[in-house]
Amino acid sequence: MTQKRVAVIGAGYTKFDEHWDKSLRDLATEAGGKALADAKMEGKEIQALFVGNMSGGRFIGQEHLAALAVDQAGLTPIPATRCEGACASGALAFRKALLSIQAGEHDIVMAAGAEKMTDIKGEAAVAALMGAGDHEWESAIGLTFSGLYALIARAHMKQFGTTREQLAMVSVNNHKNGALNPLAQHPYTVSLEDVLTSTMISDPLRLLDCSPITDGSAAVVLASEEAVKKLGIENPVWILASGQASDTLALHDRKSFTEMAATKFAAKTAYTKAGLTPEKIDVAEVHDCFSINEILAIEDLGFCKKGEGGKFVEQGKIAIGGERPINTMGGLKSIGHPVGASGIRQIIDLTTQLRGRAGKLQVNGAKVGLAQNVGGSGATAVVNILGVE
Amino acid sequence: MTQKRVAVIGAGYTKFDEHWDKSLRDLATEAGGKALADAKMEGKEIQALFVGNMSGGRFIGQEHLAALAVDQAGLTPIPATRCEGACASGALAFRKALLSIQAGEHDIVMAAGAEKMTDIKGEAAVAALMGAGDHEWESAIGLTFSGLYALIARAHMKQFGTTREQLAMVSVNNHKNGALNPLAQHPYTVSLEDVLTSTMISDPLRLLDCSPITDGSAAVVLASEEAVKKLGIENPVWILASGQASDTLALHDRKSFTEMAATKFAAKTAYTKAGLTPEKIDVAEVHDCFSINEILAIEDLGFCKKGEGGKFVEQGKIAIGGERPINTMGGLKSIGHPVGASGIRQIIDLTTQLRGRAGKLQVNGAKVGLAQNVGGSGATAVVNILGVE
Repeated sequence: MTQKRVAVIGAGYTKFDEHWDKSLRDLATEAGGKALADAKMEGKEIQALFVGNMSGGRFIGQEHLAALAVDQAGLTPIPATRCEGACASGALAFRKALLSIQAGEHDIVMAAGAEKMTDIKGEAAVAALMGAGDHEWESAIGLTFSGLYALIARAHMKQFGTTREQLAMVSVNNHKNGALNPLAQHPYTVSLEDVLTSTMISDPLRLLDCSPITDGSAAVVLASEEAVKKLGIENPVWILASGQASDTLALHDRKSFTEMAATKFAAKTAYTKAGLTPEKIDVAEVHDCFSINEILAIEDLGFCKKGEGGKFVEQGKIAIGGERPINTMGGLKSIGHPVGASGIRQIIDLTTQLRGRAGKLQVNGAKVGLAQNVGGSGATAVVNILGVE
Repeated sequence: MTQKRVAVIGAGYTKFDEHWDKSLRDLATEAGGKALADAKMEGKEIQALFVGNMSGGRFIGQEHLAALAVDQAGLTPIPATRCEGACASGALAFRKALLSIQAGEHDIVMAAGAEKMTDIKGEAAVAALMGAGDHEWESAIGLTFSGLYALIARAHMKQFGTTREQLAMVSVNNHKNGALNPLAQHPYTVSLEDVLTSTMISDPLRLLDCSPITDGSAAVVLASEEAVKKLGIENPVWILASGQASDTLALHDRKSFTEMAATKFAAKTAYTKAGLTPEKIDVAEVHDCFSINEILAIEDLGFCKKGEGGKFVEQGKIAIGGERPINTMGGLKSIGHPVGASGIRQIIDLTTQLRGRAGKLQVNGAKVGLAQNVGGSGATAVVNILGVE
């Protein structure tokens, strides 16, 4: 069965930051408003809402977040659904929004993501984030996500000779880009030395290898091809393909620590659907929650051979102007990582590139972009490919 | 656009109970196994999983529950997505599973629901459940769900003369049915006097007006019409229509305390799609989290005029053999209410009735059934209509 074509027609995110004076409902409403303004439409044209949020229950005592968002936006009685897959919640909301249009259920929908992480203490936030891991086998023995990714980093360094410096170069690249993104939480450059001498978090990962704890929200408007034509949208960004896959929740159950099988399966699905190979991707947003994860992503998405991701980064291939520009607006590392929102933020940054509106961060001639969003230590992965004509 | 036809081809739920010796992962795996056995298929035929769960983060320290479920079932790498809309999470998972087939993305998928509520103390469970309400305007001032529904009950009694006895008759009916359901948490009858003299919880609601805190899981297998034919399924239960709607999160923002606008919108959508009127519904599962909510549902689903729900119950019309049999297997009240699972359990009980397998609880000649699942005090409502040929 041929699936309906669907496009992103509006996109916007809030400043990612520690928002001491704004609540999740404020942030979500702001992001939704930005997406609507970008699409040049009013809220009443939205027929359904999908919200990615990982742990509102623990961060702010609030579940039922999609109903909250649609209520705050004054858009009742349209259907509103929260999707959760840890840090991949945003991409899940995007994907379910896409499917709702392809199912013939709706024509114009909004997919949003939001997380308010700074209302509780740091230790409580770390504990809440471990809800993404395996509670009985990982959290209960004291593992944290920096610990899990440190294990992955050590295995990758041992197996492939990936260096501490190569890990640091991921953060250097992403901060270099993010320094020019006014919506980034940490919009400044960091040097190799800055990363290598920053506070040790979980050996070998240091503070500047880790994405921060962030408040923020992001939203996009999706429309069917019929709606795109009817509305006379001039710059639709088409969703060429979407893939989603799962892996074991606990890291120790994996066949390999040095690859993410879910990313590989999701990417394979997406590439096959889009009829594209990795070489055709002009710009990519990958899930750099920790520096090592960007290296895994580069390999698992097929941008280089397994084990050569560190070298790929060292050779400057991920830079704007490089062979495969990655995280061109700053990634999770520099922009920040409000966990439920990041998957939508990635789509927005791709949209900006594909529309040619990235200013000094523009990848010249970018026509096809890929976003990879990961939940936990890789138990959920979503890969979306977007393109312009 | 004509949407693809989709059927329920397998269904099963665990005993609903206080499961001191089973974890959420045990319960979810058991329910999934029952649904597969009923569909006479192996897990490897399932192409995607959708899981309804309200508050795993607060009940058991575990988010990312769809990945957990698919991992425990040994079904990686298929896509797995958690859907959340408070106590309507189960129906949301069911609906997203339906849309994924209608989108042409999958042919055979599983929709499940699970909640493990008894691992934390009663007060903590009540607090976690208030995550379904408005945290800033309701939970923060001490409102609980029994309190919110007590306000609704008082308003209904004042406006329409609904009596305390009529509320009690809802529980009497549902327990009468549930007494014959071996999977029910409270499989015994209660008398009118039992309800009227039970402990006061929130005036006018007493203990036996309230659904219990429960552990349990439920799962169904959905298949496209092509897959139903290919598999040679003999007793498919077709999904005739699905509707979903939202309302304000906080009760005080509603235009009326005595109706659920989200139920009315979702029902209107579903009836229109199915080309049916309320009179055509042979059997219904409605969301009796508190006795008053069954009365609201009876009215808002169009089974009687607004304000006459109490009388409808008093006249015995909801009994098996009555005009519109409701909660024929015991409802949330007698079977129990593991919040993320109840929406799926309703679908399963309808399926049992429509297949004519309800034994002593059978509604003779039942061909069309309706399930109504509500989140919070009505901010989310999902109405699904099923039927057999």
